[in-house]
Amino acid sequence: MTVTARRELVLGAYLSYGTGHHAAAWRHPEAVADGAQNIGHYVNLARTAERGLFDFMFLSDTPSVFNDDQDGYGGRVVVFEPMTLLSALAMTTTHLGLIATSSTTYKEPYNVAREFASLDLISGGRAGWNLVTSSKSDAARNFGLPAHPDHDARYERAAEFYDVVTGLWDSWDDDALPRDKEGGRFYDPRRRHPLRHEGPAFRVLGELNISRPVQGHPVIVQAGSSEAGKELAARTAEIVFTAQPDPERGSAFARDLKARLGRFPRVNPDVLVLPGLCPFTGPTDEIARERFEQLQRLIHPRLGVAMLSDLVGGFDLSGYDVDGPLPRLPPSNGNQSRRALIERLAREDGLSIRQLYERMTVARGHAVVIGSYQRVAETMAEWLEAGAADGFNIMPPYLPGALDEFVDHVVPRLQALGVYKQSYRDGTLRDKLGLLRPPSRYARSRVLTGR
Amino acid sequence: MTVTARRELVLGAYLSYGTGHHAAAWRHPEAVADGAQNIGHYVNLARTAERGLFDFMFLSDTPSVFNDDQDGYGGRVVVFEPMTLLSALAMTTTHLGLIATSSTTYKEPYNVAREFASLDLISGGRAGWNLVTSSKSDAARNFGLPAHPDHDARYERAAEFYDVVTGLWDSWDDDALPRDKEGGRFYDPRRRHPLRHEGPAFRVLGELNISRPVQGHPVIVQAGSSEAGKELAARTAEIVFTAQPDPERGSAFARDLKARLGRFPRVNPDVLVLPGLCPFTGPTDEIARERFEQLQRLIHPRLGVAMLSDLVGGFDLSGYDVDGPLPRLPPSNGNQSRRALIERLAREDGLSIRQLYERMTVARGHAVVIGSYQRVAETMAEWLEAGAADGFNIMPPYLPGALDEFVDHVVPRLQALGVYKQSYRDGTLRDKLGLLRPPSRYARSRVLTGR
Repeated sequence: MTVTARRELVLGAYLSYGTGHHAAAWRHPEAVADGAQNIGHYVNLARTAERGLFDFMFLSDTPSVFNDDQDGYGGRVVVFEPMTLLSALAMTTTHLGLIATSSTTYKEPYNVAREFASLDLISGGRAGWNLVTSSKSDAARNFGLPAHPDHDARYERAAEFYDVVTGLWDSWDDDALPRDKEGGRFYDPRRRHPLRHEGPAFRVLGELNISRPVQGHPVIVQAGSSEAGKELAARTAEIVFTAQPDPERGSAFARDLKARLGRFPRVNPDVLVLPGLCPFTGPTDEIARERFEQLQRLIHPRLGVAMLSDLVGGFDLSGYDVDGPLPRLPPSNGNQSRRALIERLAREDGLSIRQLYERMTVARGHAVVIGSYQRVAETMAEWLEAGAADGFNIMPPYLPGALDEFVDHVVPRLQALGVYKQSYRDGTLRDKLGLLRPPSRYARSRVLTGR
Repeated sequence: MTVTARRELVLGAYLSYGTGHHAAAWRHPEAVADGAQNIGHYVNLARTAERGLFDFMFLSDTPSVFNDDQDGYGGRVVVFEPMTLLSALAMTTTHLGLIATSSTTYKEPYNVAREFASLDLISGGRAGWNLVTSSKSDAARNFGLPAHPDHDARYERAAEFYDVVTGLWDSWDDDALPRDKEGGRFYDPRRRHPLRHEGPAFRVLGELNISRPVQGHPVIVQAGSSEAGKELAARTAEIVFTAQPDPERGSAFARDLKARLGRFPRVNPDVLVLPGLCPFTGPTDEIARERFEQLQRLIHPRLGVAMLSDLVGGFDLSGYDVDGPLPRLPPSNGNQSRRALIERLAREDGLSIRQLYERMTVARGHAVVIGSYQRVAETMAEWLEAGAADGFNIMPPYLPGALDEFVDHVVPRLQALGVYKQSYRDGTLRDKLGLLRPPSRYARSRVLTGR
């Protein structure tokens, strides 16, 4: 065990793809084809995740139609808006953390700060914010921008956005609201702090119109794995969600990221590294493999090439030999870390275009495990012991079936291996994750004593 | 009965002021002082409203702290964000319409379109959008604007904002998503329509990433009563919420508004005019009057003058004799219709500053009825018969007590008078209100046949 390893895996249920993460999931005979827009389906998924003691459910987001290919991630062409969906699910769950992605590129920080503070209050302290820079260039045209802002500009804006949002969350001290009916004092003006932010991207000079979140700040999640992404994560993140294909690369990523932490003043000295994991599982390795093959057969090669073209940043690969090598790609303004991963797989592992899309369309560069319940559980424990993961964001390939299987069969095996909790801890999402509650920036004593 | 009168009152429960609408509501002995941020309290309020067969609950909103006076609308200094709150309450109610205010001044239309479409889907067709231009100048500083945009510019932007949002809601035809697993066709590309909007304020060239709302478009509500507000309402609104102090002024407003409708192409030829109504009630007129006086005694004169200063557009009245007349006011960039109402009351009814704030702080210019359950019910029926209202947005002076009283005692009397329904109709909020479902702008047949 390395010093970074935890005894218990942190688990997220990555459920934005309402039909499942596999590219052809919506065509699975058992898939709920309208799952991405079916509230009853989501109520069931969230309850299943809670039955499996998942720490949180996770929703990615992009403010544009996800994919132009009609056969593709069909189940994800049209989706719920994340904050409304999680607010609804807050009422049907008790323990589950609720982490939504919200773009720093196409929203105003005042609105984002309000929404997450409100979700945190509604859910009794279970909100988390996955702070992203939108990487889909399609989104720009939905917001009147002639072109998508470039990668570094998006990250500079994201860092400033974070400062504004956390500053707004501190507008009211935790004890700012005595609500003294007799004395007629609703709030204590000395404990009210208008933000005075004037930066390159934002000017915000007021206070938030909602009290300090239950958790102080909702849990901060980051998913960028580029150089700029890792720097932002080291400064701001408490959880990092990342695409790592195997434990070796996962360990290297975790070491790199954790080595950066000391350079920043942080409330929580450590960060939880959670790779995505897409489990194809069943009672035996053979059944798991059959289930995987069944889904792969539902992908059309035309779709595979179109998806890979999209994943490398919008470069059209349809004119190339699918059994030949990946051509040299021109510069792109899209997601840099995923593109680099694909180029590395082509170069180091010698994968053809077909092999690349087969690999990438399964889980878009995330780790894939195909095997029995026991094999999946043991693989997860190995990542933990190798210091490659503090837990995983589980990406069920099809829904609801693959989440049910995981909860009913993999979770008990993780518990038997001693790497997963037997019940929820009390308290907020922070409490459950062992994360300290950030003191207000205006607190007289800045000693980080936690709760 | 005039031609505009309806047989049954439409009723909204105006519940943004979580402690109640009276300025001192939070100090009421029975008030839930943290009501504006207490989710359990809101769950109870929404259930009570549904027990009373209310057509909808209504949340106003402004993206800034509501009032700078600490004794003032204390219960409303910090509040839930409306879309998250209504999404949560969608899960705890079955019939209640869910109408949120969303600013066209400080949000992007793509985000607003998504949020309301998502709420409509989550709630099974119960969403409504109160389209406002933010009238609080404080909000500008939260969004990096040097000054609040002027009144007419805000309304021009609002009209264009409406066009973009409704255009985005029509991105996908109602039958665009066959989700044919066998044929591998998730959607029909002929039934997908990217918006091509290029206007003075917005440029939006994509399609919404959520399917067409259950109601086609969520119900459109407008609350502006200025000249620009009435024109926008005549073009876009299906419900108009308005502040009218008495049936005479209410009738004049309704006639004026309804006379404008013919100039615009409208799916629903009529509009529902709903004045706000703040009922102080009890078993007898005397008890109702006592309850009113009890709350009035909890307002400090300093607070009354501060609130009136705010209501006239931020002109400080604290240096004037409270028992003298309202001074001549300099031009203001705030809410024009409320300021005009105050000036009219001062001029026509000769009210002093004290009398004005006593009148305005009760319900900010909305109708107030102080009387027995029977008197309140009869007053409401009179407005209906006079053509001054199609219903009301009920503003309980304190919560939860005044809503309970209304539901338990006034509603049965309205039913006995034959002006209120005995049970909910089936269907969406539109169905319940008798409003036609808007066809898509791309529908081949534009005949407005309803459902």
